[in-house]
Amino acid sequence: MKAIRLTRPAPDSFLLEDIPVPEPGDGQVLVKVKAAGICGTDRHLWHWDPSVRDMLSPPFTPGHEFCGEVAALGRGVSDWAAGDYVSCEMHLVCGRCGACRNGAAHLCMNHKVVGIHQDGTFAQYVVLPASNLVKLPKEVPPKIGAFLDALGNAVHTALSAPIAGRTVAVLGFGPIGAMTAAVAQFCGAAAVFVSDVNPHNLKRARDWAARLEQRAGRKLPIHVFDVRGEGRRAAIDAVRRETEGDGCDVVLEISGAETAINDALEMLRPGGSLRLLGLTKDRGLSITSYNRDVVFKGLDIQGIFGRRIFETWHQMLSMLRAGLDVDFVVTDEHPIETFLDGISKFDRGEAMKVVIYPNGR
Amino acid sequence: MKAIRLTRPAPDSFLLEDIPVPEPGDGQVLVKVKAAGICGTDRHLWHWDPSVRDMLSPPFTPGHEFCGEVAALGRGVSDWAAGDYVSCEMHLVCGRCGACRNGAAHLCMNHKVVGIHQDGTFAQYVVLPASNLVKLPKEVPPKIGAFLDALGNAVHTALSAPIAGRTVAVLGFGPIGAMTAAVAQFCGAAAVFVSDVNPHNLKRARDWAARLEQRAGRKLPIHVFDVRGEGRRAAIDAVRRETEGDGCDVVLEISGAETAINDALEMLRPGGSLRLLGLTKDRGLSITSYNRDVVFKGLDIQGIFGRRIFETWHQMLSMLRAGLDVDFVVTDEHPIETFLDGISKFDRGEAMKVVIYPNGR
Amino acid sequence: MKAIRLTRPAPDSFLLEDIPVPEPGDGQVLVKVKAAGICGTDRHLWHWDPSVRDMLSPPFTPGHEFCGEVAALGRGVSDWAAGDYVSCEMHLVCGRCGACRNGAAHLCMNHKVVGIHQDGTFAQYVVLPASNLVKLPKEVPPKIGAFLDALGNAVHTALSAPIAGRTVAVLGFGPIGAMTAAVAQFCGAAAVFVSDVNPHNLKRARDWAARLEQRAGRKLPIHVFDVRGEGRRAAIDAVRRETEGDGCDVVLEISGAETAINDALEMLRPGGSLRLLGLTKDRGLSITSYNRDVVFKGLDIQGIFGRRIFETWHQMLSMLRAGLDVDFVVTDEHPIETFLDGISKFDRGEAMKVVIYPNGR
Amino acid sequence: MKAIRLTRPAPDSFLLEDIPVPEPGDGQVLVKVKAAGICGTDRHLWHWDPSVRDMLSPPFTPGHEFCGEVAALGRGVSDWAAGDYVSCEMHLVCGRCGACRNGAAHLCMNHKVVGIHQDGTFAQYVVLPASNLVKLPKEVPPKIGAFLDALGNAVHTALSAPIAGRTVAVLGFGPIGAMTAAVAQFCGAAAVFVSDVNPHNLKRARDWAARLEQRAGRKLPIHVFDVRGEGRRAAIDAVRRETEGDGCDVVLEISGAETAINDALEMLRPGGSLRLLGLTKDRGLSITSYNRDVVFKGLDIQGIFGRRIFETWHQMLSMLRAGLDVDFVVTDEHPIETFLDGISKFDRGEAMKVVIYPNGR
Repeated sequence: MKAIRLTRPAPDSFLLEDIPVPEPGDGQVLVKVKAAGICGTDRHLWHWDPSVRDMLSPPFTPGHEFCGEVAALGRGVSDWAAGDYVSCEMHLVCGRCGACRNGAAHLCMNHKVVGIHQDGTFAQYVVLPASNLVKLPKEVPPKIGAFLDALGNAVHTALSAPIAGRTVAVLGFGPIGAMTAAVAQFCGAAAVFVSDVNPHNLKRARDWAARLEQRAGRKLPIHVFDVRGEGRRAAIDAVRRETEGDGCDVVLEISGAETAINDALEMLRPGGSLRLLGLTKDRGLSITSYNRDVVFKGLDIQGIFGRRIFETWHQMLSMLRAGLDVDFVVTDEHPIETFLDGISKFDRGEAMKVVIYPNGR
Repeated sequence: MKAIRLTRPAPDSFLLEDIPVPEPGDGQVLVKVKAAGICGTDRHLWHWDPSVRDMLSPPFTPGHEFCGEVAALGRGVSDWAAGDYVSCEMHLVCGRCGACRNGAAHLCMNHKVVGIHQDGTFAQYVVLPASNLVKLPKEVPPKIGAFLDALGNAVHTALSAPIAGRTVAVLGFGPIGAMTAAVAQFCGAAAVFVSDVNPHNLKRARDWAARLEQRAGRKLPIHVFDVRGEGRRAAIDAVRRETEGDGCDVVLEISGAETAINDALEMLRPGGSLRLLGLTKDRGLSITSYNRDVVFKGLDIQGIFGRRIFETWHQMLSMLRAGLDVDFVVTDEHPIETFLDGISKFDRGEAMKVVIYPNGR
Repeated sequence: MKAIRLTRPAPDSFLLEDIPVPEPGDGQVLVKVKAAGICGTDRHLWHWDPSVRDMLSPPFTPGHEFCGEVAALGRGVSDWAAGDYVSCEMHLVCGRCGACRNGAAHLCMNHKVVGIHQDGTFAQYVVLPASNLVKLPKEVPPKIGAFLDALGNAVHTALSAPIAGRTVAVLGFGPIGAMTAAVAQFCGAAAVFVSDVNPHNLKRARDWAARLEQRAGRKLPIHVFDVRGEGRRAAIDAVRRETEGDGCDVVLEISGAETAINDALEMLRPGGSLRLLGLTKDRGLSITSYNRDVVFKGLDIQGIFGRRIFETWHQMLSMLRAGLDVDFVVTDEHPIETFLDGISKFDRGEAMKVVIYPNGR
Repeated sequence: MKAIRLTRPAPDSFLLEDIPVPEPGDGQVLVKVKAAGICGTDRHLWHWDPSVRDMLSPPFTPGHEFCGEVAALGRGVSDWAAGDYVSCEMHLVCGRCGACRNGAAHLCMNHKVVGIHQDGTFAQYVVLPASNLVKLPKEVPPKIGAFLDALGNAVHTALSAPIAGRTVAVLGFGPIGAMTAAVAQFCGAAAVFVSDVNPHNLKRARDWAARLEQRAGRKLPIHVFDVRGEGRRAAIDAVRRETEGDGCDVVLEISGAETAINDALEMLRPGGSLRLLGLTKDRGLSITSYNRDVVFKGLDIQGIFGRRIFETWHQMLSMLRAGLDVDFVVTDEHPIETFLDGISKFDRGEAMKVVIYPNGR
């Protein structure tokens, strides 16, 4: 079968190869890949970044966002049948640690990731543990099913704080930020403030808002801020102005920029909620006004990792069926043969979500 | 000034009278009434129902939903100015009990209600405590400002349970039920199930769903059930079917019908949330499957009374500005002179929300 | 091996028999039973009560509370070793339903119970699924390890509402009620109100309180109420008096008595929390003041079933190590040969928790 | 009357003076001070520290922890009577901002503090707003009533996270840290880990643990860590060891030390709870492992300021009546004449809580 392989421990070593179709073992399922999304992590793999390389043992197949069709069952699998339309929670948890045993398996510190620790989804077939599969409703097209792990991050982030009737800022409008903003808007946010520093992302944010307003036939309380340079201060001031001086109720931080996290602390109202998904470049963080903004304002802060298993999946699929629209994040679609074109464009910041179809569309 | 008065302790004793404009005392404000809504409680007053008559001392002016304009300030009031566009939390709490001192003033057992314990809003002017006023944004028209207390009940009910991405049933589609359903739909419910036994209400529910679908340009997961006779069973079965056999996540009970409350217990999934606003006719309740549905399913149940002061007001006004549409509940509008026509139609179940304009439109 | 068997579908058909030691299958473990508790359900089995008989297929071995030592491992079990000191979550859940997949496995409607649906712990050995075992710390003696499923019910109930600094009523002082009261007292309850109608239980409650006060060297805010006849009213009045007229913060309902549940509604403060573990005799429930006590008071109510898997186990074992004392609930200890004496005394209401030692002490 | 006055804008300018007894205005009450506690803030006032001096307008009377007896009522006060035994919430909130109107008045950004912005409690009499008074039960002796604002900080911190059956670390064992640890232990913590760098505080922590163990007649899961130098690493390792490698459930950060906050992030288990009361010296904070410890571990973090008004007061007084013992934090007691001796000893780190009796004991 055709597969994109990270062929050796070096940058720029993704190659399209022909390898044998794998066989599902005990408790596993072979799935024929319909569509797979390219994620920021894949870019780090491609660059052989220090942040990821310790986890990797080339050669292997990357890819950890996808949907497909069950093709064959391993021994002992009875819950699934050939032809089932599925996606998969790609974090494989240990089931034994405190987090796994106490209802927080998404925080398992021993988890492995498909497409990083074992062969992934940029291939015509992938083998996965049956217990991690998620049945997809037919209303979710492969184009969207291709990146449910990423949408799950967005849903997990947005629904970890009360959104209905609240003013919500989403910092960062890459693919996950864009979907987080879409979820917040879908769930009755009183206002959505969006910020970014990338002109492509800012344009997409403005287009997204314009499209929603056109559909609604009226002005919506969506505000897009360019937070380069003086824009940071202007954004904080605007949030304050739009919230009668109080500050906003919720900030969903997706960017991982230290400046953004500090801005978040400043733009929140006393008692507001901050959700932190973005990772900083240098692993640490410096907060300038800890006393004033964290302690005195009594903020409620939570780190967000992965997706709740499987609660987030249930919410995500429910919302897609109810009309949540995240189509707009898909800017590029490719057969597996032109995968490198897709990841290159994504790498230049010109594409948002790139979807690959290993078995054709 | 013109005012509707409950003139004597007997049924059918509402009369339009001319009385002096009241004067605001210490800490009070005189407000010129722009619009006032007729509520189910007013119907009980009109019928001199046993359930309300112990609280009443005629003659007095009923009416406890409204918006208006500040006309004069009593001694010691500095937060308001003539011309301010306002509504008011009509539950006047004691400020001294455990509930008031511990952040649950809406559950104050010593509270008094404007329009029941003191003169209300079916008049050209009303006197109110300054500290209970709520400033209205200009985007909220008087037609909607007229019944914010009722909308507050709906918002309080809907936002007391997680709604986003959840399947939600709303039992009862009178004015508060209809607004509760609208809030649930606005806040990202995965599906909205609505039930009633009144053909007028059922028609309005279907019209509401059709209008939303037309606006969205596609089918929405909104289901309307006629729960007369065999319809009860059919509704429970349909909810189960639409939720893959699990039962729905949330039921918002507005009807107060014993049958509906029992249906609610049955249609909820294990661990589901039930919110109880409706009052039963005979003050008690008989549950047929307590062990199976309440205990074994580990339900999360909460009674809902009034509105959180002022948290619900803040959420409600935010959602109205963000586009929550509850216009459809207003079926009739009257000058104060034809108030009795309005309440009569409402009493026959033919009107939903009736809005009165004591100073003309 | 020796085992108590429910030998035929009829009352009073428990017999001590000699049967083969079972063998653990795939994913199972054979455990040598150190100690096993007799629970109210076992009494229902013994009486062949209508409430349980539909679930039963005699002959089988009852018993679903225990601790023991791992004796042999089935195929594919690697997490356990011979000699491990263990107990077990006796609800075997399906792993596939909405509850199981969304973090509420204790509410799985497809669960099976060891000692009811398959052979249990009133025997020298029992076979159990490896994934349900729980490792016990050596500080928990077999006498206490014998009834952790029951203690888990108590811990689940008590910790499902905020207890610290709150006034807490526990209705029913049978074994689970007694342990629930002990947990509430251990967790910083501001006052503990206990009620029962059984003179044995009332005496045990008073003895428990006296012992705690002796240990503390001072009067403690523990109140015991005999709620037979006029005692009901007196108890409600006393709770009110001790809480400055507000009513208590939390009621933990263990008795399943309709009168007790109605009293609970009345004795709670506005916004108070009610947790419902007890099952009513006739499966239904009649509430006399639904409007006043459930709706107007905005109560927060939750059904409690089983134990959170495995969160409750973690909390329970942690508290036992930290000094939670539930020794006092064990009133009788028997070798398996005199099992019938133990269950008879329990059946007469004279024993609280009876512990059986199938392999001697 | 006698009063300690901050006499001029300079360090070391506290003087005992004779000034007129103040008169209560509208809505105010004159209270005769029985006992008043010295707090860390008073030390900053004494040193004329940059962190506080901008808020101050000498001359004025410091002191913001106390209890006393109502001596005279201002106009319009009807809830209190001469002789009432009271304390007072010393944060005077605005009542108009979003925080005040939405149930989080303790986070009012416009609040004023008695003893900083207006005359305080190091005097024989103090004037306070009637609505901020709290009635004290007679079981709370003046020696403890003297510092309820500080105890309130501790109770607010400890009860803002689930404690029962959880492993809890308290960083910093000054007066507030010591009381926080006492509350955690009282509320059923599975283990209490305490750390400090001050030898006086460490000795007091060990004495406290020893006394509790003596009272209980057995070893308790209380661990005291000296986190100077290598001790930091040892403490983290010990917490991990005692929690089976998971990390602890809750950290209550009282110290304000940057090292301690970083240690807190490391010692918490995935999904654990961090509560932040301590203020850093330089107002900011540098986190070294933000990605790993905040984001990947999905921590739940909350800043803590002041006390919930009046929910914390209610919980605090309830726990004191139920037997919470915080006597041990009082190391020194003084008449007002030797106030300077008391604050000097406190300033040297040799005293923990110093109580002043302005009207004699």
